[in-house]
Amino acid sequence: MVNWKFWRRRPPARILRLRSRGDLGDATRVAFEELAPDATTFLGQAAYLQLGYFETLSRLIRATPDLDEKEALSLAAGAALVKHRAIVDVIRERGEVPSEIMRPFQAQLDEFRWATIGARPRETMLSVHITAGMLDDFYRTLAAEYGDTGRKVARILNVDSDRELIVDLIRATIEADDEMRSLLSMWARRLVGDTLLVARAALRPQRLGVDDEKKVEPVFTALMAAHARRMDALGLSS
Amino acid sequence: MVNWKFWRRRPPARILRLRSRGDLGDATRVAFEELAPDATTFLGQAAYLQLGYFETLSRLIRATPDLDEKEALSLAAGAALVKHRAIVDVIRERGEVPSEIMRPFQAQLDEFRWATIGARPRETMLSVHITAGMLDDFYRTLAAEYGDTGRKVARILNVDSDRELIVDLIRATIEADDEMRSLLSMWARRLVGDTLLVARAALRPQRLGVDDEKKVEPVFTALMAAHARRMDALGLSS
Repeated sequence: MVNWKFWRRRPPARILRLRSRGDLGDATRVAFEELAPDATTFLGQAAYLQLGYFETLSRLIRATPDLDEKEALSLAAGAALVKHRAIVDVIRERGEVPSEIMRPFQAQLDEFRWATIGARPRETMLSVHITAGMLDDFYRTLAAEYGDTGRKVARILNVDSDRELIVDLIRATIEADDEMRSLLSMWARRLVGDTLLVARAALRPQRLGVDDEKKVEPVFTALMAAHARRMDALGLSS
Repeated sequence: MVNWKFWRRRPPARILRLRSRGDLGDATRVAFEELAPDATTFLGQAAYLQLGYFETLSRLIRATPDLDEKEALSLAAGAALVKHRAIVDVIRERGEVPSEIMRPFQAQLDEFRWATIGARPRETMLSVHITAGMLDDFYRTLAAEYGDTGRKVARILNVDSDRELIVDLIRATIEADDEMRSLLSMWARRLVGDTLLVARAALRPQRLGVDDEKKVEPVFTALMAAHARRMDALGLSS
């Protein structure tokens, strides 16, 4: 009698569309192929990233005594945890051991995540919104390279991340407090650089040649465009 | 396209059966009626308790670097969070504001929860297993007093809490380490007393008369019996 209809639902999230000059959708996909990591790396990173968002959000739940903030955070934490567990299930269906597949990326992704934890809860909330926003887009784009497995992961990542209430909290702070606005604006700029590095580090080879740079450029351009829209929606310039 | 089938499912958990001399099922229900708190108190406490289990479990996820332990903990944390959110939805359906309904119990239940956080992660895992085990049984029993709302909450609490992997971890520690066995055994005894007090504090009047004591006695006897079975399963005496 398990019935997950209990979980609050929202319409599916926007899927990142890749566009540079002209409509490059398929062309980009093909070019990306050679640079995409192997399926194991893709799955391990995608699963561990969601666990990380969950850990960061649940740290914030504990840190706030405000029950409405707890609600906003627990909704998003739950969505991240469900995604983590869903990717873990995909890994297991392939006959692989989730913890073994995640372990190689643990140190690097933990370090990244710790660097996204701010001095104030609002900074950390913004971190999750920005980094998860960009990296979910990125892994959703990568997913096209892994056939059926990739389609499953894309479906998981397409589910709404339930961060709207967190965005409302950040926006309210930005509107009410000029000092916080400027602080969050700087914080966001720092985060973007770190996040792009994480995305790039997922690609092989480690050092991209000039041709490779050309291939991935439209992907990163699309990530930055989606990021700019998120910043606009918050009333921050990117 | 939200699809919670991703979440790992297990068969529904055992429902607490009330039995003392003879088969008292319905008799107990009727007697309980006068002592049960109002629906708002019931819902606020039930919702906030699940959030508390979630917070304690997610604290443990962060505390351990072991990915298999994280997995065990995240499964249980997710189940608690889903239950919390489901009860929150029931509250909202009644036209009430979840944060307002939970707030009166926040200080008391936080204090209880902090007292269940042990010096070692295994103690805290055992705390969740024991306290959530007893209190879910208790609120499931109370649920019979609240008609349709109660049925919804009972249905939510009947969903598996996904703590099996945590129980496996505790059991492995108990089998491997005599010092930990004795420590966890003492810890469990302390927890039971605190947990029974929380259950009793939920009942009105605050000070139970002799007749009231007789009415609730079979409920507490059933709680203790279920607790003893959980302890047995761990290889601990209760």
